[in-house]
Amino acid sequence: MHQNFNIRFAEEKDTGLILQLIRELAEYERMLNELKADEDILRESLFDRKDAEVIIAEYDNKPVGYALFFHNFSTFLGKRGLYLEDIYIRPEYRGRGFGKKIFAFLANLAEERKCSRMEWMVLDWNKHSIDFYKSLGAIPLDEWTIFRLDQDALRKLADKSK
Amino acid sequence: MHQNFNIRFAEEKDTGLILQLIRELAEYERMLNELKADEDILRESLFDRKDAEVIIAEYDNKPVGYALFFHNFSTFLGKRGLYLEDIYIRPEYRGRGFGKKIFAFLANLAEERKCSRMEWMVLDWNKHSIDFYKSLGAIPLDEWTIFRLDQDALRKLADKSK
Repeated sequence: MHQNFNIRFAEEKDTGLILQLIRELAEYERMLNELKADEDILRESLFDRKDAEVIIAEYDNKPVGYALFFHNFSTFLGKRGLYLEDIYIRPEYRGRGFGKKIFAFLANLAEERKCSRMEWMVLDWNKHSIDFYKSLGAIPLDEWTIFRLDQDALRKLADKSK
Repeated sequence: MHQNFNIRFAEEKDTGLILQLIRELAEYERMLNELKADEDILRESLFDRKDAEVIIAEYDNKPVGYALFFHNFSTFLGKRGLYLEDIYIRPEYRGRGFGKKIFAFLANLAEERKCSRMEWMVLDWNKHSIDFYKSLGAIPLDEWTIFRLDQDALRKLADKSK
């Protein structure tokens, strides 16, 4: 049915495309003002340092979305997990099951890499995505809250270590 | 004041101690039934594969707590962050500022490694910790929820990629 759908690992030459897709995601999440990365920063992080990995989804050889992920770690299981930082499908390609194919690809990758689980975050207002994630068998960790020290708070706290 | 307090990076010979401290944390979080890691698993993950790093806090040369962390990644910033998976201080050593010293140590490490931010999760009932994190300048990401595919759900979804 989707023989023209393909998922591949991104390469350095995709850096411009990745930034464009990230920008579209930032617009969708109403967070464009928080997008600080540029091509040089992404090239260094993704392809020199390999801080995270990116896959590109294509349909008829055109890019239709991407996912960015890295490995986290469960102390209680003693094993790596796969943490999905971003998944994005361009609006005109939604509703065709491509998102589910990306999740299945990543679940298979996580199994191959002997990961204990796969996790990601969603904005609470994004009911459409939440329903989709539940349909995949994912459960919300409702009893947990993320805390964050941003750059300024980090610097202030770091000063206290000296 | 705390000249006898010291923080050091864990080594392979600390594996048994790390497991003991993880077990104490699991008891405190009422999750002992979820603790699957043993010494062999931890040795492989932490010291062969280096999936995460551990620091040990000591007072008068006795272990009083630990923290386990790894690097996550912010797409919008294009940079690594420091993700604190666990922090634990033995009950008899609480109330002396040791937790704050561990956070300051990690904040300084995050700065040295050019991380954009530092993050961790807390159980919603743990008001004492939440107040402490806010006192450090951390903010709760109340509008986000974590979703998780556990091992069984991961396997089922992976099968759909074939």
